[in-house]
Amino acid sequence: MAPDFRPQTLALPGPLQLDSGQALEHVEIAYETYGELNDRRDNAILVCHALTGDQYLASEHPVTGKPGWWERMVGPGKSIDTARFHVICANVIGSCLGSTGPASIAPDGAPYAMRFPVITVRDMVRGLVGLLDGLRIQRLHAVVGGSMGGMQALSLAANWPERAGRVLVIASTSRHSAQNIAFHELGRQAIMADPNWRGGDYYGDQGAPDAGLAVARMAAHITYLSEDGLTEKFGRRLQDREAKSFGFEADFQVESYLRYQGSGFTRRFDANSYLYITRAMDYFDLAEEHGGRLADAFAGSSARFCLVSFDSDWLYPTAESRHLVHALNAAGAEASFVELSAPFGHDSFLLDVPALDRVVAGFIE
Amino acid sequence: MAPDFRPQTLALPGPLQLDSGQALEHVEIAYETYGELNDRRDNAILVCHALTGDQYLASEHPVTGKPGWWERMVGPGKSIDTARFHVICANVIGSCLGSTGPASIAPDGAPYAMRFPVITVRDMVRGLVGLLDGLRIQRLHAVVGGSMGGMQALSLAANWPERAGRVLVIASTSRHSAQNIAFHELGRQAIMADPNWRGGDYYGDQGAPDAGLAVARMAAHITYLSEDGLTEKFGRRLQDREAKSFGFEADFQVESYLRYQGSGFTRRFDANSYLYITRAMDYFDLAEEHGGRLADAFAGSSARFCLVSFDSDWLYPTAESRHLVHALNAAGAEASFVELSAPFGHDSFLLDVPALDRVVAGFIE
Repeated sequence: MAPDFRPQTLALPGPLQLDSGQALEHVEIAYETYGELNDRRDNAILVCHALTGDQYLASEHPVTGKPGWWERMVGPGKSIDTARFHVICANVIGSCLGSTGPASIAPDGAPYAMRFPVITVRDMVRGLVGLLDGLRIQRLHAVVGGSMGGMQALSLAANWPERAGRVLVIASTSRHSAQNIAFHELGRQAIMADPNWRGGDYYGDQGAPDAGLAVARMAAHITYLSEDGLTEKFGRRLQDREAKSFGFEADFQVESYLRYQGSGFTRRFDANSYLYITRAMDYFDLAEEHGGRLADAFAGSSARFCLVSFDSDWLYPTAESRHLVHALNAAGAEASFVELSAPFGHDSFLLDVPALDRVVAGFIE
Repeated sequence: MAPDFRPQTLALPGPLQLDSGQALEHVEIAYETYGELNDRRDNAILVCHALTGDQYLASEHPVTGKPGWWERMVGPGKSIDTARFHVICANVIGSCLGSTGPASIAPDGAPYAMRFPVITVRDMVRGLVGLLDGLRIQRLHAVVGGSMGGMQALSLAANWPERAGRVLVIASTSRHSAQNIAFHELGRQAIMADPNWRGGDYYGDQGAPDAGLAVARMAAHITYLSEDGLTEKFGRRLQDREAKSFGFEADFQVESYLRYQGSGFTRRFDANSYLYITRAMDYFDLAEEHGGRLADAFAGSSARFCLVSFDSDWLYPTAESRHLVHALNAAGAEASFVELSAPFGHDSFLLDVPALDRVVAGFIE
């Protein structure tokens, strides 16, 4: 887990009422901003992060020291131009980079651990709306997100339609499929099978369920890349050797890659947060939230929508975006849609896809 | 792991020389047969099993009490007609249903565990050829296999071309892709991360790495079903409840299914066997074994080949079978090929696909 660092936070003034019926008290939202807010307070863009993302959108990550996760997209003169826009990115509740989550201290003085309430994507957005209120931003120029960030953008548009003028949803979906749920359940079972998980109570000195969390991350990484992308990147190439070892070391490059991704992840992420956030994603079903008809989710919206999918994304394939576009059309919303060709699978939204840069810039304008 | 049972076995007369350069001594091959061998000893069909399969092809499994895994295909009057053919199915070496594997007792009196040599698919077939020699069957009427069973059928055809007149390969491949390796590595890491694995030395009373093995099995099951199959079978339906629990129980049917598959598997399979057999599959690369050109693998073959793929199989998609057919054509071999439409993904070869029954019956004749 993350060592100590001091994120910028905003404390919500009252308890957060959750979809479960529970209320979460003393909620803090950790966030970063880039670019100046103008006097009319109408040039703000909220970027929502994905499952294991965080608020360090365009600045160095305090734990890993790596550049911000969307530096290619956000900055002066870039597609989301911080010379013109005030860009906000906040850690979602349930996560572990400074916003209230399972590792946070509960009112009784001990970490929440599994006493943290199960949250939904809409609950995460409730936290974000609380942040916007605290920052006195009534209406966003745009809300933008990829993957789970796209779910949040959709949830904001559906439930707080007056809060954003533009909604940009990249590589996302209106609900998790059985296969999506299956992969997440696999990850959760890997974490919970780790004896170090201890029912979630591992925040002392005894060691965290890193082995289980690493396996969960490996499973997720397989879903983030396309089969062609994996073949192109690794094929059957061996790692630092001329011949197979006839052992169980990482003979193949793809094995070495997965092990590296798994173990690196445990240094920056909390296993309980992984449980809670994957659960929220699995629960996400925008149509169900709105009486069973997806178009009804957008009935109150006057925002402009843009949806982007990638042809190699098998986690949230193009059909999911098309399904959303049909619903938006049925609701009479202004919606554009493009499927981009990129070899990187679901991860394309984070990677070098110049066509995406142009779509984002054009839609944000 | 499996309780005691007494499989029918044949002891190989000498040590088995392995691809690794090592030799395996005192090899036993556990097998079952169905139907009578004729006087000319030329009506035998060898059916090769998949990763977690076994010799109980058409008879009750001694551990689970379930019917044989291919009863729909093998029996009197069925596609592989035991009224006409003598059908043999043997547990591969490295497995755990009676053939020599990591749980077997080594010459020093202790279980091999991870001292068992890393084997290849060709090594498994060496064991099967040893069995055929012991049974005095010089030439099979046919060798048949799905998934890893298909790899064995291909390996027999390539390396012992005189031993089979017909080669039927279903839902298989000539080599594992990066994505195939990735899923197997995920499973291995889940097993090895389980503290009960203890470097493989868990055969006493301390308990086996069941939690890790269950996670590995869950990952595999996701790959065995198609996304459409999962959607049709489970969708987002809830398990025995009206509403989400806002907890971490198996709310969704697909979660319940995966947990059941994972835990059930640990009662009949050995975790170390899972490591060794997945490793063998990852190592499988028929072209590499034959100088880098797949067609050369079949240069000496006079057998008739039939390849079958399923349109919903994303583990070994149709392109893999087509790749094999091209190589067989280039080698001048007689090869037929059919892609069948079935909704069950990779598992289609085990399930109710009447078109497959007809293809098998027609090819075996």
